[in-house]
Amino acid sequence: MTLALQPAFTLTVDLAEPREVGRTLAGHRRVIPILGGTVTGPALTGEVLPGGADWNLVRPDGAIHVWARYELRTTEGFVVSVTNEGLGEPGKPIPTRPVFEVPTAGPAWLSVGFFLGELRLGDHPGQVRIAVSQVIPG
Amino acid sequence: MTLALQPAFTLTVDLAEPREVGRTLAGHRRVIPILGGTVTGPALTGEVLPGGADWNLVRPDGAIHVWARYELRTTEGFVVSVTNEGLGEPGKPIPTRPVFEVPTAGPAWLSVGFFLGELRLGDHPGQVRIAVSQVIPG
Amino acid sequence: MTLALQPAFTLTVDLAEPREVGRTLAGHRRVIPILGGTVTGPALTGEVLPGGADWNLVRPDGAIHVWARYELRTTEGFVVSVTNEGLGEPGKPIPTRPVFEVPTAGPAWLSVGFFLGELRLGDHPGQVRIAVSQVIPG
Amino acid sequence: MTLALQPAFTLTVDLAEPREVGRTLAGHRRVIPILGGTVTGPALTGEVLPGGADWNLVRPDGAIHVWARYELRTTEGFVVSVTNEGLGEPGKPIPTRPVFEVPTAGPAWLSVGFFLGELRLGDHPGQVRIAVSQVIPG
Repeated sequence: MTLALQPAFTLTVDLAEPREVGRTLAGHRRVIPILGGTVTGPALTGEVLPGGADWNLVRPDGAIHVWARYELRTTEGFVVSVTNEGLGEPGKPIPTRPVFEVPTAGPAWLSVGFFLGELRLGDHPGQVRIAVSQVIPG
Repeated sequence: MTLALQPAFTLTVDLAEPREVGRTLAGHRRVIPILGGTVTGPALTGEVLPGGADWNLVRPDGAIHVWARYELRTTEGFVVSVTNEGLGEPGKPIPTRPVFEVPTAGPAWLSVGFFLGELRLGDHPGQVRIAVSQVIPG
Repeated sequence: MTLALQPAFTLTVDLAEPREVGRTLAGHRRVIPILGGTVTGPALTGEVLPGGADWNLVRPDGAIHVWARYELRTTEGFVVSVTNEGLGEPGKPIPTRPVFEVPTAGPAWLSVGFFLGELRLGDHPGQVRIAVSQVIPG
Repeated sequence: MTLALQPAFTLTVDLAEPREVGRTLAGHRRVIPILGGTVTGPALTGEVLPGGADWNLVRPDGAIHVWARYELRTTEGFVVSVTNEGLGEPGKPIPTRPVFEVPTAGPAWLSVGFFLGELRLGDHPGQVRIAVSQVIPG
């Protein structure tokens, strides 16, 4: 494996109270709405827009499955749509793979790159922080 | 084809102003947040909860692709997660296939059934109505 | 609901012996490879190409989830990629929603239309037949 | 970012001649059937089973999108279903995120872990090699 992880930016996301679906065929589902947040460098800055959610699942085997869809606005004014899926263990940071849909005039590197995120608790309850790195093939 | 369509319920959904991502690789993307709404019978009643969105796409070939995720609360108090995908032409009702994730104590027929929706404009701008039928094999 | 179902074509598909994954988190998974088949009118004719499979799942609630990906070749020589997802009950025909990816010079109506399939057993073990109708909004 | 990449195993996969769908709305699609292969340690050994494919796409922006679904059989006899999605540039190794569906009696770490793959050309034309690492949160 010669892949390298190059730090790109951090998403700090404020979350609303979860809405509980409860136990389903897939596990325990709760929907966690996104209130907004920030995008801080080095490679991208801007804000996380309110709207969207993490359709979060605790699977029967205990694994936590993250599936979030929401939008960013870069400092330059481009709106970028994010789909961030991850899988992890309770009580630990959760690895994710964020995918970015970008307007054609916007930051194309977000669209063609492959990224890895690390989602962890933020500074206060109801906040998470996702450190996003670009995966660089060797 | 011996499939029959049995009317199940209608979702009336109020939408916020779209947030424009603009032209992307996939087409013209706009995100249309969901403000809430109603679920009216015959087979299910309740409300559409605020939150989630339609990540709507106008494809380069002119087709409209609907991809919406949001939640309902039934009159009995069950929260049901909806993913509704559709494909249609501008200016016409859009066929969709809604998928429902249901808590285990809730309406299991929504979870095991196959449904077809017809999405059309509602009574006023910013409202859509989705007539949902269950597809019954012959 | 003013949707009408207009018969389009029938896929007759020959299947290999299933490969059992067995019981997983999602249910009982088996993979059923596709050996080939035919596409018979009225709206499209051709052959089902060997390759791909149905990654079939019997869910814990007994529902059968079909998820198949494979290719067709039309009589005119266009290769069309099919993703066919369905959900049904054991012992009954299974409603599906096939999605077609079509080369730009090929049959565009398959790409922009919304289709409904009805999957049932064929003339002999190891064969299924999918009657595909186009969903026409009213 | 405190994620670490722990080498897990390598998939060496032999591929058949691509079947060309050609230019579609999404880009240039070709389907590359999987003939079989090997799984070599350290953490898992076995074989790649024949069947499935990479539904490969060269996007209009030149990025290569890999989407492959196929099965492995471990030396212990468990059949594991793999979905491997990636995104990269022509002429370079392609980062991927493989997801493994595992029978409940089988290697659970494959089911709960988050993995990163690096797909590169193999020893001869028609072969690729995917070095899979487990992503370990810090």
